[in-house]
Amino acid sequence: MQTIEKINLAEKFGLINDYWNPRIAGELNGQQVKIAKFKGEFEWHHHEHEDEFFLVISGQFEMHLRDKMVVLNPGECIVIPRGVEHKPVAPVEAEVLMFEPASTVNTGNLENSERTRTNLEKL
Amino acid sequence: MQTIEKINLAEKFGLINDYWNPRIAGELNGQQVKIAKFKGEFEWHHHEHEDEFFLVISGQFEMHLRDKMVVLNPGECIVIPRGVEHKPVAPVEAEVLMFEPASTVNTGNLENSERTRTNLEKL
Repeated sequence: MQTIEKINLAEKFGLINDYWNPRIAGELNGQQVKIAKFKGEFEWHHHEHEDEFFLVISGQFEMHLRDKMVVLNPGECIVIPRGVEHKPVAPVEAEVLMFEPASTVNTGNLENSERTRTNLEKL
Repeated sequence: MQTIEKINLAEKFGLINDYWNPRIAGELNGQQVKIAKFKGEFEWHHHEHEDEFFLVISGQFEMHLRDKMVVLNPGECIVIPRGVEHKPVAPVEAEVLMFEPASTVNTGNLENSERTRTNLEKL
C-alpha cells in the first residue's frame, strides 16, 4: 500500500519564503491542492479552461474582479470560473490554499509573465 | 457575468445540524467542495474510482486505515487514494471540508448504507 500521511498546512507554509509561487501540497483525481503565500499585487489574468478555488488559511487578500472586489478572510473561499478576469491583491501576507487542475498555470493567459511558475515544487 | 460571491465556511457550517451528511459548498472543474460535520463513527468503505481530500476546519477526527490511524486537527488534511479502505471516526464534533469529484458518494462501495447520501444539498 502506498504511504498515506497527513499534511499539516502550517508546517508546509513554514517552508515557504516567497510570494506568488504555488507549491503542490497534494494531488488527487488529476487535480492539485496548491498552497502559496500572497503579498502585494498580482497581475490581471484569466484561465481559459480551468476554474480555480481559493481558501484563505491566514491573513487576508482581495480578489479584484472587473466589476467588484471581494475581501477574503481566514475561513473564506471563492471560486473563480474559467474565463473570468481576476487579480489577487494582498495588502498583508496571506496564506492561501487552492484547488485546481494539475494543468493550471498561475498566470493563466499571461504565459510568459515574470511571475509565471511551471514545474511546481512538491512540499 | 455569473455572480461570484465568497463562501464563508463558518457561516455555512452554522447551517448544518446533522452529521455525516455532506453539503456542496462549491463546484469547479467537475469537482465539488463539500462540507460536513463529523461526530461518532462512520463505516469502513472505499471509493473504487475516486481519491478524496479531507481538511479539518475545526474539531478533530481520526482517519482509520487498515494498517494505522491518523489523527487530524484543524489545518491538517489527508488524501485517501482510490481503493483504500478507510473509516473516519470523530470522538468530538469536527467540521470538515472535502474536495472530490462530483460523482463521489460518501459511503463509496457501500451503496445502500443508511448513511449513504446522494442528491446533496447546496449551501
